[in-house]
Amino acid sequence: MFNVGIIGATGYVGIEIVRLLQNHPEINISTVVSHSFAGQKISDVYPNLKNVFDMECESLDIDKISEKADIFITALPHGISKEVIPKLIQRNKRVIDHSGDFRYKSVEVYEKWYNTKHGMPHLLDISVYGLPELYRDKIKDAKLVANPGCYPTCSILAIAPLLKNKLIKTKGIIIDAASGITGAGRNTTLPFQFCESSENFKAYKVANHRHTSEIEQELSFLANEEIMVSFTPHLVPMKRGMLCTIYADLACDKSAKEIIDIYKEYYKDEFFVRIMDEGKLPETKYVAGSNYIDIGIVVDERLSRVIVLSALDNLGKGASSQAVQDLNIMFGLPEHSGLTAPALYF
Amino acid sequence: MFNVGIIGATGYVGIEIVRLLQNHPEINISTVVSHSFAGQKISDVYPNLKNVFDMECESLDIDKISEKADIFITALPHGISKEVIPKLIQRNKRVIDHSGDFRYKSVEVYEKWYNTKHGMPHLLDISVYGLPELYRDKIKDAKLVANPGCYPTCSILAIAPLLKNKLIKTKGIIIDAASGITGAGRNTTLPFQFCESSENFKAYKVANHRHTSEIEQELSFLANEEIMVSFTPHLVPMKRGMLCTIYADLACDKSAKEIIDIYKEYYKDEFFVRIMDEGKLPETKYVAGSNYIDIGIVVDERLSRVIVLSALDNLGKGASSQAVQDLNIMFGLPEHSGLTAPALYF
Amino acid sequence: MFNVGIIGATGYVGIEIVRLLQNHPEINISTVVSHSFAGQKISDVYPNLKNVFDMECESLDIDKISEKADIFITALPHGISKEVIPKLIQRNKRVIDHSGDFRYKSVEVYEKWYNTKHGMPHLLDISVYGLPELYRDKIKDAKLVANPGCYPTCSILAIAPLLKNKLIKTKGIIIDAASGITGAGRNTTLPFQFCESSENFKAYKVANHRHTSEIEQELSFLANEEIMVSFTPHLVPMKRGMLCTIYADLACDKSAKEIIDIYKEYYKDEFFVRIMDEGKLPETKYVAGSNYIDIGIVVDERLSRVIVLSALDNLGKGASSQAVQDLNIMFGLPEHSGLTAPALYF
Amino acid sequence: MFNVGIIGATGYVGIEIVRLLQNHPEINISTVVSHSFAGQKISDVYPNLKNVFDMECESLDIDKISEKADIFITALPHGISKEVIPKLIQRNKRVIDHSGDFRYKSVEVYEKWYNTKHGMPHLLDISVYGLPELYRDKIKDAKLVANPGCYPTCSILAIAPLLKNKLIKTKGIIIDAASGITGAGRNTTLPFQFCESSENFKAYKVANHRHTSEIEQELSFLANEEIMVSFTPHLVPMKRGMLCTIYADLACDKSAKEIIDIYKEYYKDEFFVRIMDEGKLPETKYVAGSNYIDIGIVVDERLSRVIVLSALDNLGKGASSQAVQDLNIMFGLPEHSGLTAPALYF
Repeated sequence: MFNVGIIGATGYVGIEIVRLLQNHPEINISTVVSHSFAGQKISDVYPNLKNVFDMECESLDIDKISEKADIFITALPHGISKEVIPKLIQRNKRVIDHSGDFRYKSVEVYEKWYNTKHGMPHLLDISVYGLPELYRDKIKDAKLVANPGCYPTCSILAIAPLLKNKLIKTKGIIIDAASGITGAGRNTTLPFQFCESSENFKAYKVANHRHTSEIEQELSFLANEEIMVSFTPHLVPMKRGMLCTIYADLACDKSAKEIIDIYKEYYKDEFFVRIMDEGKLPETKYVAGSNYIDIGIVVDERLSRVIVLSALDNLGKGASSQAVQDLNIMFGLPEHSGLTAPALYF
Repeated sequence: MFNVGIIGATGYVGIEIVRLLQNHPEINISTVVSHSFAGQKISDVYPNLKNVFDMECESLDIDKISEKADIFITALPHGISKEVIPKLIQRNKRVIDHSGDFRYKSVEVYEKWYNTKHGMPHLLDISVYGLPELYRDKIKDAKLVANPGCYPTCSILAIAPLLKNKLIKTKGIIIDAASGITGAGRNTTLPFQFCESSENFKAYKVANHRHTSEIEQELSFLANEEIMVSFTPHLVPMKRGMLCTIYADLACDKSAKEIIDIYKEYYKDEFFVRIMDEGKLPETKYVAGSNYIDIGIVVDERLSRVIVLSALDNLGKGASSQAVQDLNIMFGLPEHSGLTAPALYF
Repeated sequence: MFNVGIIGATGYVGIEIVRLLQNHPEINISTVVSHSFAGQKISDVYPNLKNVFDMECESLDIDKISEKADIFITALPHGISKEVIPKLIQRNKRVIDHSGDFRYKSVEVYEKWYNTKHGMPHLLDISVYGLPELYRDKIKDAKLVANPGCYPTCSILAIAPLLKNKLIKTKGIIIDAASGITGAGRNTTLPFQFCESSENFKAYKVANHRHTSEIEQELSFLANEEIMVSFTPHLVPMKRGMLCTIYADLACDKSAKEIIDIYKEYYKDEFFVRIMDEGKLPETKYVAGSNYIDIGIVVDERLSRVIVLSALDNLGKGASSQAVQDLNIMFGLPEHSGLTAPALYF
Repeated sequence: MFNVGIIGATGYVGIEIVRLLQNHPEINISTVVSHSFAGQKISDVYPNLKNVFDMECESLDIDKISEKADIFITALPHGISKEVIPKLIQRNKRVIDHSGDFRYKSVEVYEKWYNTKHGMPHLLDISVYGLPELYRDKIKDAKLVANPGCYPTCSILAIAPLLKNKLIKTKGIIIDAASGITGAGRNTTLPFQFCESSENFKAYKVANHRHTSEIEQELSFLANEEIMVSFTPHLVPMKRGMLCTIYADLACDKSAKEIIDIYKEYYKDEFFVRIMDEGKLPETKYVAGSNYIDIGIVVDERLSRVIVLSALDNLGKGASSQAVQDLNIMFGLPEHSGLTAPALYF
């Protein structure tokens, strides 16, 4: 058994990682760290885990926890990662982080979109973008893995085969996305209150969501040219699930069937990427609770435009289970180890 | 008091019209017609109306009901309108219809998108598209008003000021839309069952929804050139409400503030169109249960693209209350008569 | 037009009163007071009211607001009522209050269940329990009306005819109740967050909810003997609506039909109490958004037990619209004035 | 690996069994039978299973499927079980059935509550009530296991320790229960449509639900005297989860703490029964998706009454995962094999 420590274990991303790892056949959770609930059993905070995983939360004492594992997963509120991660790296620990801080290759891009100094540009040099389908080989030996954002994961995997195969024009890509409310985390502000968000649908952070820059970075690498996209997130009155509806102008004369075949070939070795057959479209209930991403393709021949639809669980492939996928890679385990549960559907 | 008859009163659109009109200060419901529930009190079918509106449903006997009103509202399953409406027109009755059958100026476009013979092209000549903000003057004296679809209402009103003022390029408009489930009507098929649609989000009829052609017709009239759009509807796990997120490339160099001012000017006399101030965005809970449409504007200066967000109640301004607005116009009443209730918010 | 001021206008109870009164034919809102949003337009806090009711919120300056109305409605956080109400009464204003502070006839009972000193027992002498169906005559001239709690309204009206007609044993009454989440108010604590309360059902405050004592007080008055009840509230993942399922042992040998007739007779002059016919049961969607309470009766002959089911909108007849009903009585207006809207159903 | 066949695999109970067993370490699904979807891949009906479990559905050919397994699980529409099960038993197959047909010891009770002739009373003699916590030893060798109803499972396990230890009076037990909508199965009738059941709460089948008789049978066995209960089911706008709130008059003078200790002792060897500590109450989100049942205890000392709250997943411990638990027992496997997943919580 490999040991792993989870720092920020009682947030939504953290507790989902706990839920996944407590049942992992090869990995052992050796410590759970929570500032808010130090000294309490994690199953008192999340009683679904009673009798299943009752470990007591520790406070964040880097020296103490460092002894307990070689790899740590950090799922911390924005800003705190920067304090913790350098210390872990210094102690020669490997880290999978969930903040945006280590996802960028360009300090300038980060500082512009996050409107703050980065402060640790040297860590950007060693960090690897934790999207296994694109960076599996680098993740394997990475010291610091920056787990991608949920929207970027859902967008980049949906667009990659189009750019790699030069099927679309690189200008004018539009990503219209919608997420369940767990995307906001364990958040007690008013807009995420049941009575404010149930029976409601809205867009937010239109044209200025930080994930835009993360998507653009990776699409630019794939296309080998600078790409800019429109990205609009929406909030859906449901807990889990994310759908991206992506519009791009075709640069070729291919049918939906032909493009689907290209996708199937591109992802033929990917366990967690499911390409829908022609005429079928993804729905979030097919993926919620799992590590799968489903991708469907429609071609609008009238407009010579392709519409790609991709669905995943924002807490699954969009965060926690992708972290476990990365962890499997880092430990040299089969990539789907502990991750084979399908969505519940209902 | 003016008399009106409602044919198809127990569907979702019909019963919402009943709910609105039973409390209208100037209009009297003189008959409610329901094939499925003839002989039953409407408040037995919808017990919220008990003691409020207990009228008995009649079966569809055109001669008999013709004596009861001068204007009829029809909200019938697809295909049945065609049998009923010509007979009403023949008896010199005025009609507000909710089907797609009389919304088109071109028989060819209708027959292509609806994949059926129209059969009554002469009625297209006399029908008026029932969007008051565009066709108020024609609605006033119309014999036959075709109440617009919900998606077209939400899209057309959101785009009209851009096209009228030539602020955008006419190619490449994308309408990404999402609707609550009442949009499917009183529908008992599996996909609309609670356990299939709650906690789920999906797109449907991608690149082939009929409302595409209706939107294109009206946008083309506004732009005075042929316009084609991408239109993608999604289903949101909520009852009421619709949001359109619309992308268009700017043909000018205007800021969000400037465009908002143009919208405010364009709609300055419109009671039911509310333009959001800069930095504010519509949410469906602001309009659900009302006849308002809220419109917000964002300009993405990086991409020289405008994103318009519009929200309405698919059963309100998108169907039933818009029919009442049309009815007020046809009777020469103040347009907001009986329609001043705001959304419940929660 | 009569003037009324609303203190605590931006909470859920307050804003629902605003929504109802802004459209009232005889009553004018002359001031809205909000500590949190003083200086802001109420329609900036609740954008559903944009163009409908844009009054600016005032801060709580008793002298200043006292000039604006003769009756005030207070919907304040627990504890603050006690500071405000005596000052209003002193200035000879009439008040409808939503706290529990003035609902009790016995200081001891209040102090035991609320675990605090009352401090103003003299106000209990003049306060009237604002349940129109029981205290209409006293409400008419009351200086201080204590609007009942939502659970008590739903329970007391459901049980009153049984006790008044001595149809049940007074021992062993059980009230099992469930409420939508607006019952918790504009509350940002974790349990009411969407992801914590959606797809969840639970009981809370079992055997110790304060409303128990309020229900017992009124049932004891009705029965003319001391009555104690089991009361268990539950939280339903919906916004509005409340259902009580009440169990009592019959002290007579009557059928459901006979008991229903007794209820119909008992409530024959009550506009807002609807007794369901035999075999029909209330559902919250029949009343949500309205001031109606629906009551259904089942007799379990095997057990000689009656089960009464009562439904109302916790923000409607359970709070805000009942306050408006009281207000109508206090102003000598028809009791249903401004309150005739039925539930939306969907 | 042990082989099992699932008949009625595409209903909600059936597909949940498929989801659980496809990942079971010791059990292999050797055939899935579906009348409606014969010839289609099960992952075409439930696309969450794509790439996970793609087996093709067979039609119901008893001879053919009999060769594929020694144990069959039947989850069939009411009435069809009776045709299928005798034929399987005749072929010496063992069966776990989900209908009510084989849960009764008394033909008379069954025929009274189900209002139909039983027709196979000889099978009642060999059938075992599939509640492992009560009948583990008989299930082990049973030919025919009648998997309990969801409400009975949730009620009986919650009351058993009280009756076994004679802590309560046997008259006057009241079970007020609420279920998520999956309890209605893959049901396309109107009341279970999203727009009819979302934002709604109601009771149904008050005083006449069939599960009453099933609960009474088992409670009577436990108490060794005839017991009659009030049982009232409610429908909650959520997919999964069930909560019973049970009222009983104490026949002893014990505190909540003492009764909790008795429960902990009674269930000390039960993997799937979790007794909450004093002051903690079950919520459906703690169990949804799992095979756990959580039980909390409150004593109302004022009334000398105990209130027991029990929560489970109506599709889990209330149906499908309980069937897997039975299956484990029948195969001689560890009872929790394949069933250790906790609830998702959100």
